[in-house]
Amino acid sequence: MHLKICTSLLVMLAANSAFAQSARQEQTKGGMDQVLLAADKAWEKVYSAKDLSKSVAVCDEQGSLLWPNTPIVIGKKAIAKAIQDDFSSGDLTWHANAVGVARSGDLGYTSGLYEAKFKSTAGAAADNGKYLTVWKKEADGSWKVLFDTFNSDRPLTTN
Amino acid sequence: MHLKICTSLLVMLAANSAFAQSARQEQTKGGMDQVLLAADKAWEKVYSAKDLSKSVAVCDEQGSLLWPNTPIVIGKKAIAKAIQDDFSSGDLTWHANAVGVARSGDLGYTSGLYEAKFKSTAGAAADNGKYLTVWKKEADGSWKVLFDTFNSDRPLTTN
Repeated sequence: MHLKICTSLLVMLAANSAFAQSARQEQTKGGMDQVLLAADKAWEKVYSAKDLSKSVAVCDEQGSLLWPNTPIVIGKKAIAKAIQDDFSSGDLTWHANAVGVARSGDLGYTSGLYEAKFKSTAGAAADNGKYLTVWKKEADGSWKVLFDTFNSDRPLTTN
Repeated sequence: MHLKICTSLLVMLAANSAFAQSARQEQTKGGMDQVLLAADKAWEKVYSAKDLSKSVAVCDEQGSLLWPNTPIVIGKKAIAKAIQDDFSSGDLTWHANAVGVARSGDLGYTSGLYEAKFKSTAGAAADNGKYLTVWKKEADGSWKVLFDTFNSDRPLTTN
């Protein structure tokens, strides 16, 4: 009887331990996702406020912008120019609706929707679409943009 | 003297072991990159050959296509339709020039350049640009497309 109780207790303890471990892993995974989502949101905040130095600082030294209708932009100096040009052309906001982080916590992505309002030669214009950002965790523990890309949801207009 | 030799040997052995471990890690990292590059290349092969079932099979069940001028496409059924439509519109080839895999080996990306030739109402046309694909390693060890996106390098033409 004692043995049976002990065995049951052990099984319960083991199950509880496995459950706790699994819950901890989920919590860690969920925690990593939340940290990366917060990084995405923090970038959006300084970007939509057109803070150039803070917006560029979020990018990796060898980061790449894969933006529409222009060749790839690589490295912080070129990124700063591209973001400055973008700030001049209009206003951009976005929000993430997907996030993922590798188990090792060194690589992740965010994806979501953007809205843009800009001035063209034809007057005020608007655009909306989707984006994908690949993030790398740096040695100091901060998340930096390795790749950023987007494109419009709107059909091409052929005038 | 003996002690000194022994200490030197131990230091050498430790250094050698650390070097070997570092080399192994680099090799593993390089190896993971090569496997993902091969997956990208294998996808390009079946895609450019317009093999629909094999092209769709490379995508994760919940994969997303973030393609220009249309809303996001999510899930294999919708992906199959989008790829079928793309096959009908013209010919696509690409090659990767960047790859990265998380230390844990479960998440990675490829990026590179594409070329497209398609038939429009205005006749034959061509396009070229860049792409970014986020890959997830499935339970069976295969790499599947979680996100795929691209956009043109060419300036928008305003007619």
